Amino acid sequence: MGKILVLYFSESGNTREMANLVAEGAKSVKGSDVRLLSIDKAKPEELLWADGVAMGAPTYEGLLSWQAKKWWDEAVKAAWGKVIGKIGCAFSSSGGWGGGAELTCQSIMTIMINFGFMVFGVPDYTGPQMTLHYGSIAAGKPANEPQRESCRRLGKRLSELVDLRRGNAGK
Amino acid sequence: MGKILVLYFSESGNTREMANLVAEGAKSVKGSDVRLLSIDKAKPEELLWADGVAMGAPTYEGLLSWQAKKWWDEAVKAAWGKVIGKIGCAFSSSGGWGGGAELTCQSIMTIMINFGFMVFGVPDYTGPQMTLHYGSIAAGKPANEPQRESCRRLGKRLSELVDLRRGNAGK
Amino acid sequence: MGKILVLYFSESGNTREMANLVAEGAKSVKGSDVRLLSIDKAKPEELLWADGVAMGAPTYEGLLSWQAKKWWDEAVKAAWGKVIGKIGCAFSSSGGWGGGAELTCQSIMTIMINFGFMVFGVPDYTGPQMTLHYGSIAAGKPANEPQRESCRRLGKRLSELVDLRRGNAGK
Amino acid sequence: MGKILVLYFSESGNTREMANLVAEGAKSVKGSDVRLLSIDKAKPEELLWADGVAMGAPTYEGLLSWQAKKWWDEAVKAAWGKVIGKIGCAFSSSGGWGGGAELTCQSIMTIMINFGFMVFGVPDYTGPQMTLHYGSIAAGKPANEPQRESCRRLGKRLSELVDLRRGNAGK
Repeated sequence: MGKILVLYFSESGNTREMANLVAEGAKSVKGSDVRLLSIDKAKPEELLWADGVAMGAPTYEGLLSWQAKKWWDEAVKAAWGKVIGKIGCAFSSSGGWGGGAELTCQSIMTIMINFGFMVFGVPDYTGPQMTLHYGSIAAGKPANEPQRESCRRLGKRLSELVDLRRGNAGK
Repeated sequence: MGKILVLYFSESGNTREMANLVAEGAKSVKGSDVRLLSIDKAKPEELLWADGVAMGAPTYEGLLSWQAKKWWDEAVKAAWGKVIGKIGCAFSSSGGWGGGAELTCQSIMTIMINFGFMVFGVPDYTGPQMTLHYGSIAAGKPANEPQRESCRRLGKRLSELVDLRRGNAGK
Repeated sequence: MGKILVLYFSESGNTREMANLVAEGAKSVKGSDVRLLSIDKAKPEELLWADGVAMGAPTYEGLLSWQAKKWWDEAVKAAWGKVIGKIGCAFSSSGGWGGGAELTCQSIMTIMINFGFMVFGVPDYTGPQMTLHYGSIAAGKPANEPQRESCRRLGKRLSELVDLRRGNAGK
Repeated sequence: MGKILVLYFSESGNTREMANLVAEGAKSVKGSDVRLLSIDKAKPEELLWADGVAMGAPTYEGLLSWQAKKWWDEAVKAAWGKVIGKIGCAFSSSGGWGGGAELTCQSIMTIMINFGFMVFGVPDYTGPQMTLHYGSIAAGKPANEPQRESCRRLGKRLSELVDLRRGNAGK
């Protein structure tokens, strides 16, 4: 059974809404054990528990917000280098298209790579001109079905990849 | 008089359409001398002529296309390190939102920084949830007025910054 | 048995020397089937064969060289989206420390993420002040043992992660 | 007279040592007014005062540390979009070569671009295999003369570019 952590920081509620959808997608894979946690509630030790982690943060100047960065900086001692081979991915809400949400996903993946995670994006399109190649992004809240589906798809792929990694039957 | 080079590679015509709009914006600043060139027609020496350069390329796997990269790789001997203090910016069309256009703008700016350019983006919003913080981006062709205006705004800002740099009267 | 492709482009021979060491490290994991290929010899179909891919290219302006980019651009039709869950990593030689080799590894990982790969770096230090957090890097050729070991370590970790993913016995 | 702000966060003292050298380089350009400030002492309003800003932070997981990110996040309201055409650059100390210092400089420049700055790196080599293409980097403290000179060179170039921008005599 794959253990999935969906971790987020949200001020306006937009990133939280994305996190809910990512968790919904992760749960859609049978047998997944999914925890959805704001960074206020999450301890660095959760990283050791999880097989797969999706992390969401609002886009502040093309990078994850400082509160989210602080979480990772403080997780260093507990988990750094102890997560080799775990799987990670990212999502972010920004003020507009072209506002840095892709770069923010890249910044979250940079942190995860540093810790020892394997990170991924999803080639699929979830509607006309809507994709999640480097993680799921939204301008404001995920407003329409293709954007909402891009969040679910990210979580679903995370659960699938965790399953694959564990060599589950049927793969 | 600021000398502006709008340089692009385009296969589908989407990036060319963006380039036309960027050039239009650059020309809207009085006294600007604007050259619009496909990389097929542009020689590396054009970099030495220009005070400001906007470069556009389609997004292929989150980076500028190989043809556009080749242009810069071959420009190295002629222009590398001789463009200190010139000003640069980027634009890109991708298959969809979340498809890597921001990352492609970042890759073009990485090249420009390497050469010695100063690079910039534009904080302005050109419509609801449409901005060009790291350069102008489009999903497919620039389909509506905010997207088209984001291209013009990029070119206009480039001309303005070039003027500022030269210490023109009235600044 | 994990199938590993070590893929490189090299002009000066520095990146080739790194590739040899990465392949050596990959082979050190029992049962690994390792192919070492210059992009001149490699077909995009090799991506479909491999479970894990390490890609090396010289740093040109903070990104992989155009020849290496062309290889991936042309591989798109054959392999794009068909490599979900395969594992990738990067290495690069640049002219000097601070010359863009980390950014080049990032650019190669950006391509791999786009294709559907999971990508990783290695937290380990291979000597005082020598690590490979985002892939293995060298200034010029890998000149001393910590730098050479960083290449081997990258290949070894790739083989280990491929094994882990396949759920091999003993893990 | 160019107004230069050298801004830094430092825990171990390594980044502070770099900042001292950057400030020394900036002062070497005649007529420059240089302020050297830890982020503890610096108010966001300093961004409005300065014509040029060099920002240094330690590399934590391939990005600037959360304390440095917080400074920028909180500067948003006071200075965002009001710094158009100001000039910025970055420096960082990491645990080792390949440890993410280039990526950290990129992350600082991403913030600056977002605010409206023009950002740059320096093509020069300051010794064999030592450069500062994307800002000045060090493994630990700047230990030898080429590394120390790379910090000075960054500050000097910043002062020179600020002068150029203001159209000073002799340029």
